[in-house]
Amino acid sequence: MLETVTKTADDVAAVMAGIGAKARAASRIMANAPSEQKNRALRAMARMVRCSAAQVLAANAEDVSRAKADGMAAAFIDRLKLTPERIDGIAAGIEAIAELADPVGTTLASWERPNGLAIARVRTPLGVIGVIYESRPNVTADAGALCLKAGNAVILRGGSDSFASSRAIHGCLTRGLLEAGLPEDAIQIVPTRDRAAVGEMLAGLSGNLDVIVPRGGKSLVARVQEEARVPVFAHLEGICHVYIHEAADLAMARAIVVNAKMRRTGICGAAETLLIDRSVVASHLPAIVADLKAAGCAVRGDAEACSAVDGIEAASEADWSAEYLDAIISVRVVGGIDAAMAHIARYGSSHTESIVTDDAAAAEKFLAEVDSAIVMHNASTQFADGGEFGMGAEIGIATGRMHARGPVGVEQLTSFKYRVRGSGQVRP
Amino acid sequence: MLETVTKTADDVAAVMAGIGAKARAASRIMANAPSEQKNRALRAMARMVRCSAAQVLAANAEDVSRAKADGMAAAFIDRLKLTPERIDGIAAGIEAIAELADPVGTTLASWERPNGLAIARVRTPLGVIGVIYESRPNVTADAGALCLKAGNAVILRGGSDSFASSRAIHGCLTRGLLEAGLPEDAIQIVPTRDRAAVGEMLAGLSGNLDVIVPRGGKSLVARVQEEARVPVFAHLEGICHVYIHEAADLAMARAIVVNAKMRRTGICGAAETLLIDRSVVASHLPAIVADLKAAGCAVRGDAEACSAVDGIEAASEADWSAEYLDAIISVRVVGGIDAAMAHIARYGSSHTESIVTDDAAAAEKFLAEVDSAIVMHNASTQFADGGEFGMGAEIGIATGRMHARGPVGVEQLTSFKYRVRGSGQVRP
Repeated sequence: MLETVTKTADDVAAVMAGIGAKARAASRIMANAPSEQKNRALRAMARMVRCSAAQVLAANAEDVSRAKADGMAAAFIDRLKLTPERIDGIAAGIEAIAELADPVGTTLASWERPNGLAIARVRTPLGVIGVIYESRPNVTADAGALCLKAGNAVILRGGSDSFASSRAIHGCLTRGLLEAGLPEDAIQIVPTRDRAAVGEMLAGLSGNLDVIVPRGGKSLVARVQEEARVPVFAHLEGICHVYIHEAADLAMARAIVVNAKMRRTGICGAAETLLIDRSVVASHLPAIVADLKAAGCAVRGDAEACSAVDGIEAASEADWSAEYLDAIISVRVVGGIDAAMAHIARYGSSHTESIVTDDAAAAEKFLAEVDSAIVMHNASTQFADGGEFGMGAEIGIATGRMHARGPVGVEQLTSFKYRVRGSGQVRP
Repeated sequence: MLETVTKTADDVAAVMAGIGAKARAASRIMANAPSEQKNRALRAMARMVRCSAAQVLAANAEDVSRAKADGMAAAFIDRLKLTPERIDGIAAGIEAIAELADPVGTTLASWERPNGLAIARVRTPLGVIGVIYESRPNVTADAGALCLKAGNAVILRGGSDSFASSRAIHGCLTRGLLEAGLPEDAIQIVPTRDRAAVGEMLAGLSGNLDVIVPRGGKSLVARVQEEARVPVFAHLEGICHVYIHEAADLAMARAIVVNAKMRRTGICGAAETLLIDRSVVASHLPAIVADLKAAGCAVRGDAEACSAVDGIEAASEADWSAEYLDAIISVRVVGGIDAAMAHIARYGSSHTESIVTDDAAAAEKFLAEVDSAIVMHNASTQFADGGEFGMGAEIGIATGRMHARGPVGVEQLTSFKYRVRGSGQVRP
C-alpha cells in the first residue's frame, strides 16, 4: 500500500475532494444497506484483522521504530504499540459492534393526526462522518466499525505516527466491506501524512462531510472546534466535580471520591475538583484526604480546606480550571448547594458532575439544575462512558448541546426523518 | 425607544458582545424556570400585545410609510403591514404557545444498568438562540415566544424595514417577562439597523450563541448557511416532488397534485416537480395537466410529457432545480421508482417528497430510501408544516441532518442531558 505523495496544497485538495465525493456516494448505498449485510461486513472485518495480524504487527513495528528514532516518550510508544493481544481486542471490538442493535429504521415516535395522517419519526444515518485521531491505531477499527453500523460512510484521518498501522488495519476493513458486497469507499483513510488534509476536512469537503469527531489531546480538539465549518462531536476537557453535600454518608463519600479521582486518572471522566459543604468539613474531609493520600494523590485546597486538614497544599485560582489528568485533586469548601453549583457553572466543562448526599431534594435539585452532559447522584464520575451506559461502544463523549451530548454511541451517529402515511389527504 | 446609534464596526461589536453575555446569563435562569412561570410570562406578553395595539400600529405605520417612500413592492408592504386583526393573531399565537406542553425536563428514555445505576435522558433547553428575519414583524413574537417556551434565551434580529414594529412588539414581550419575574434579557432585540450586527451573530458572539434560525428569503438563508460559525436550523429551498407511481389511483393522484402545487404556491412545501411513471402517462397525465391548467398553473415538461399531452411547454435542465414558488410545475416521465428516486436525489432539496400509489411495497421502498426530511405516501406535500404535524407551532423547517430536521417546534429547540441515580456505585 503506497502512501499518496502530495507535493502541493492543490494535490491534497484534489485528493480530499475525491475522497469526499466517493464517501457521499457510498453513504447513499450504506443508508439502505440491510442490518444483516452490515453485520456480515463487520464480522468479515474482524476475521480479516485476526488473519492479518502478522502484517498489521509488521506495519506497527515500522511506526514504532520511527517513533523511537524520533525520540517519542514511552507513554506515546505504549499507545502506539500493538501486540497480538491488542489485535485480538480490536477484532473482538468489531464483533461486539456487529452484535449491537441496528439503530437505522427504528421508530422514535409515532402519532396520528385527526385527518388520519400517520406520522412517524424514524432514525436514518447521519451521512458522512470524519474522524481525526492521533497515535492510537485501534481507533481506525473502532471508529470505522461504529460509523458503519449506523449506516454512515466514514473518512478516517489517523495520526502520522500510526500511519502504517492504521493503513494496515484499514485494509482489513475494506476487505470486509467488499466481502459483504458493500462499497469499499464506505470506510476511507486519508492516504497522505500531509497536515493540509486535516484543513480540507475542517472546511467540510464541499458539503460532503456532515460531522467531525476528533479523538485525541486537547490541542487537536481545540483546533477542530475552532476551525471546523461542520458540526463537531467532542469535549475539549473533562473538569469533573464531586460535591460532598452536608447530608452525605461518610463511607459512601470516601468510596466515591477515591474512585472518581484515582481509579484511572487519565480519562475524561476522572474527577478533578472536590467540593465539600462547610458543615461537614470537620467530620468528612480528614478521612477523604487520608484515603486520597494513601492512594497516592496530591491534594490542593483553598484556605479553609488547608486549615482544616494537614497535608493539603494551597491551591491557586488556576487549579479550579485545571484538568490534571493525573493524581492531583483540588478541594474547595462551599457554603451549600447553590455555591457548589455556581462553582461548577463557572469552572466546569459541562462534562460530568456528581453529588453525594442522602437528601433526595438536594439530589433532585442538583440533577435538574447542573448544566452538564452527565449529572450523577451517589455514583462515581468514572461511569461517564458509553460502555458503562450500556451503549455497547462509543466514539467519544460530547459536551456540546447540539445533536449528540454525553457518550456518542451508535444511536448518536444517526439523524431522523418523518414518514407520513396517508390515504389521499389534501390540505384544506 | 431610541435606536442605538452605532457609528463604527467596533461599536456594533461591543453592543452585540453585551447582548450575547446578557443572553447567556438569562439562559441560565430560564433553563430552570418552572413551566407555570414561563406560561405566566407568555400570557402576560399576549395581554401586553393586545393592550398596546395602538402603539404597535403607530410604529408599524412608520415602517410602512418608510417602505412606501423607498418604493417597495406591494407584496412586501403586505407582509410588513399590521392590522388590528393581525395583532390579535399575534397575541393568540403567543397564547397557543402557552398552552403547549413544556418539553423541558421530560424523559426521553430511561433504563437501569446491572450495577443498579438508573440512567435517564432528559430534555434541557438548547441555550441561546439567534433568529434573523426579514420584513414580517410577527416573527418577533412567534420566535420569541417559542424559544422562551423551551427555556431558551433568544436574540432577535429583525429586518431593518420592520424595525419600529418589531421593537414595539418586543417591548410587549419584555414587559411580559418582567411581570412574571423572569429576566428581560431572555428576549433581546438587536437595537441597531447596522448590518454588521448580523455578522457578529454569524460569528457566534464569542460562544454565547448556540444556534441561528434564519427566517426569510433565499439570499438571507444562503448567507447564514455559508457564513455562520454556529449550527443553523434552516432550509435553503423546498424543491418538493410528487411521484405518480404506476399503481396510483387516478382520482387520488389528481387531487394530491393540484393541492400540492396550487393550494398555496409560495410556501416551501409546495410541489415544484411532478414525476410520473411512463406506464401511466397515457392514462393519468392528461387529466392531471387539465386540472393544473384549470387551476391556473403553467406546465413545463420533458419531451415525453410534451408529446403525450397538449399544452405543455418544453422544460429545460434548469427547471428540475427550480423552486418556482409560483403557479408553474415541471413534469418528468420516469421509468419506475428507482428512476424517480434518482431524480429526487439529484435535483431535490431534501425537504418533502410524496409518492402516490396503491402498491404498499413501492410506498415502503420510497419512504425508506428517499433521504428527505419528510417523505409521504398518498398525501399532499403541503402538509409539511409544524402545525399540521401537531407540533402546535414551528420556527421553520430544517433540511440539515443535525439535531433538528423537518418542522422545528418547541421540542426541536431543546437538547438533553443524562441523569444518573446511584446508591454509592464505584467503577471496578
